[in-house]
Amino acid sequence: MALKLFENLSELFPDNLKPSELSQFKTVFYKELSLACHQYYQGKMMTIPKAGFYGLEWFNVWYTPGISKISTTIRDDEMASFSLTSRGSQVAVISDSTRVLGDGDVTPAGGLGVMEGKAYLIKLLGGLDATPLCINSRNRSGQPDPERIIQFVEMVQHSFAAINLEDISQPNCYRVLDQLRERCTIPVWHDDAQGTGSVVLAGLMNALKLVNKSLSDVRIVFIGAGAANTSTARLIISAGGDPHRMVLFDSKGGLSRQRQDIAERPEFYRKWQLCEQTNPDAITSIDQAVKEADVLISISRPGPDRIDPTWIQQMAHKPIVFALANPVPEIYPYAAKEAGAFIVATGRGDFDNQVNNSLGFPAILKGAVMARASRITDTMAVAAARSLAGFAEKRGLTPSTILPIMTEKGFMSQEAADVAMQAVKDGVARDVRTRDEYLRQAHEDMMESRNLHQHLMDAGIIKTPPESLIRQAIQNALEQI
Amino acid sequence: MALKLFENLSELFPDNLKPSELSQFKTVFYKELSLACHQYYQGKMMTIPKAGFYGLEWFNVWYTPGISKISTTIRDDEMASFSLTSRGSQVAVISDSTRVLGDGDVTPAGGLGVMEGKAYLIKLLGGLDATPLCINSRNRSGQPDPERIIQFVEMVQHSFAAINLEDISQPNCYRVLDQLRERCTIPVWHDDAQGTGSVVLAGLMNALKLVNKSLSDVRIVFIGAGAANTSTARLIISAGGDPHRMVLFDSKGGLSRQRQDIAERPEFYRKWQLCEQTNPDAITSIDQAVKEADVLISISRPGPDRIDPTWIQQMAHKPIVFALANPVPEIYPYAAKEAGAFIVATGRGDFDNQVNNSLGFPAILKGAVMARASRITDTMAVAAARSLAGFAEKRGLTPSTILPIMTEKGFMSQEAADVAMQAVKDGVARDVRTRDEYLRQAHEDMMESRNLHQHLMDAGIIKTPPESLIRQAIQNALEQI
Repeated sequence: MALKLFENLSELFPDNLKPSELSQFKTVFYKELSLACHQYYQGKMMTIPKAGFYGLEWFNVWYTPGISKISTTIRDDEMASFSLTSRGSQVAVISDSTRVLGDGDVTPAGGLGVMEGKAYLIKLLGGLDATPLCINSRNRSGQPDPERIIQFVEMVQHSFAAINLEDISQPNCYRVLDQLRERCTIPVWHDDAQGTGSVVLAGLMNALKLVNKSLSDVRIVFIGAGAANTSTARLIISAGGDPHRMVLFDSKGGLSRQRQDIAERPEFYRKWQLCEQTNPDAITSIDQAVKEADVLISISRPGPDRIDPTWIQQMAHKPIVFALANPVPEIYPYAAKEAGAFIVATGRGDFDNQVNNSLGFPAILKGAVMARASRITDTMAVAAARSLAGFAEKRGLTPSTILPIMTEKGFMSQEAADVAMQAVKDGVARDVRTRDEYLRQAHEDMMESRNLHQHLMDAGIIKTPPESLIRQAIQNALEQI
Repeated sequence: MALKLFENLSELFPDNLKPSELSQFKTVFYKELSLACHQYYQGKMMTIPKAGFYGLEWFNVWYTPGISKISTTIRDDEMASFSLTSRGSQVAVISDSTRVLGDGDVTPAGGLGVMEGKAYLIKLLGGLDATPLCINSRNRSGQPDPERIIQFVEMVQHSFAAINLEDISQPNCYRVLDQLRERCTIPVWHDDAQGTGSVVLAGLMNALKLVNKSLSDVRIVFIGAGAANTSTARLIISAGGDPHRMVLFDSKGGLSRQRQDIAERPEFYRKWQLCEQTNPDAITSIDQAVKEADVLISISRPGPDRIDPTWIQQMAHKPIVFALANPVPEIYPYAAKEAGAFIVATGRGDFDNQVNNSLGFPAILKGAVMARASRITDTMAVAAARSLAGFAEKRGLTPSTILPIMTEKGFMSQEAADVAMQAVKDGVARDVRTRDEYLRQAHEDMMESRNLHQHLMDAGIIKTPPESLIRQAIQNALEQI
């Protein structure tokens, strides 16, 4: 009975709230429950030996003197570190915590909860081990310094199979990612960039099927020109979107060749590329851009009142609206629908059509790690998007189910295999196998990870939190709205 | 039956080998078995969620939107990160792999097996979580650069409760440790220094009881003046040893005020302190120093022929010899005994009297982390030594059992509690409790960690390696000696 309660939290929500109140209630409730549960478990991840111990003599095997053989073997062949140590399945989740979800700069330690959450998902969904590393990137003058992040990751890369960068503020994120992709011998993934882009692209592909439009024909307006939206635009172009039908907006207006403020700042070279490629008419206002637009993709600051309903009213037939800010979308789905949106997606799991990075990064990282890829190419990210979209299409599309949901079975191992195969095609794989082999390994590792976690819960080693935590969180949330 | 085999590896050893052959056989056997078993398990540690998952809605608790509350709470109070994230029990094992056990510079990834072994021991024995981070400390001119290590650790400290530095070459290790102890808000422990010193001191205390000599009276010769032996000397002095009766040797001779080569190099300030304190007669040769010495402590390069039996023959009544190089001691115990040694200790678990850091660091780190100590003082390291020595004395001392062995029950939780209490006395604890409370927590956490590992083995989740691995390792070792 207690467990039922845990599986269906939303059944406990008060039923006398208006939609706007309920949305607000949910946000506050999850925050309150999150605080209580993090305190209860003292965090979310632990480390544990995966190798057996059979008595004192085994210290000689796992440590000195036997371990010397591992040191010298790897010294003579670094690739051996992937099979003789845990490196082969280890992903670092690295952030300088300067742009953490909707909360901005939360100090280095402040990002730990999010990065540990990411590690939790990478393990539970992707069957990889993961370690959160929140770092202080500030130099002596107190500024987040991309060179410090680059040096840190370069120094630590030999301990991991892949690096997942996360929540690094602009413009550092571009330079950090691009430099590290050049300098590291393992994949460096910036989930806010390629990751979000990949899942948005998957959702967009399926949304367009439902409205019978083609990617190369649609007009797309992007609100926000940060790492996520600029990379999303790049991936959409790479998948066949027409840059001349796209307009991106940052806080100063539309991106175009007119934007000398961007041209003048070399660190914004990624944005400038889009200034050159998109918006040939140099549209400067959102009001003008949304007229007859087919798609609105907003990844800006938390809402709920950042997308004006009148924008949606001016869009073409059957508007597609992606309002992806966290923790609160730029417009609530009910409000977007009221304004005429045909398909609405958000970043939130408590609404339909969650465009959540969790659909992408666990499998993309798994695919890259299985193939021992040296990097994750844009085409690998597009392959992940096609894989996701194809899976959802097969099981049937509706305006409220354009993407797989995280608990659906099977799509992640397929996605991982598709990504690994693309790594082979792109010539970046160092462990080339067949799709069936990749698929089997991904499936086994993902099942093993989930089964182990389930086993620990069933055996009572991971305890169920007291019901009172949930009831108290509801109480607290009700008092705050 | 298979398990019995695993518990008693040594019963399979051939019985027709001479002592010197057997010693050599064991070293090679453990290396071969280590290689096979590391390959079998693909490393030794994994990460795993310790928080429950009860369905899709829980992504909202463990990740966005609920997680925002964790970010902002820690942003406003960093100490909250110790209870709201796994940071509170997380230790980083950091090395630049430039002086790994007996193998020297093995490239950054080459140290992973050892650091993962350390993490394995910290978890299994100390009940703490631990993560190996092997880093590239080389600057553009290709030299290991202490500033790079310092910057790396400073940047990452906010993700951990303590840092265990390991296997950093001289003289960088001194500067790195001393700088980081000043600059970090969490304990930075260099196990090769304070760690080894603490366990050597414990062994020495008990050895002296058996020969009825007192620490303040004995003449001690140190072979090797690296991080381990210089720190050991410092801790022995701090515990009451007489520096005027000590002589330390490095590769160029005895440390004394005559050693201008050391005085001239500021990075060797730790060695210079000992030049000033010890060896007032400026003895320059080991042959001279060992005459009537009571104790010989060697932590230099792997043996087995680095300690000349004639040195032991010249020592005072009932010589105490610590030959601590890994993986092969500077003299094998049988040879030292033949030369007249009364008590012999090595770093090896397959000989009597293992002076192994594993007796120290898991409990010392646990004690420091429980007390939320801001640093680990020398007096905390001495408290650990007294705790260890006291435990072994209580259960009875003999010349072959001067220290607890790693599988003995109970000493580690007591040691952790004693270290935590010393942190309180030294004014560095940020979570002050009673000894009973510390003892209970240490005991619970250590038992939980061991029981969980045992449970995973019993449930077959951690599989037993095939017997053939062991038989093959024996075969391979026999062929090599």
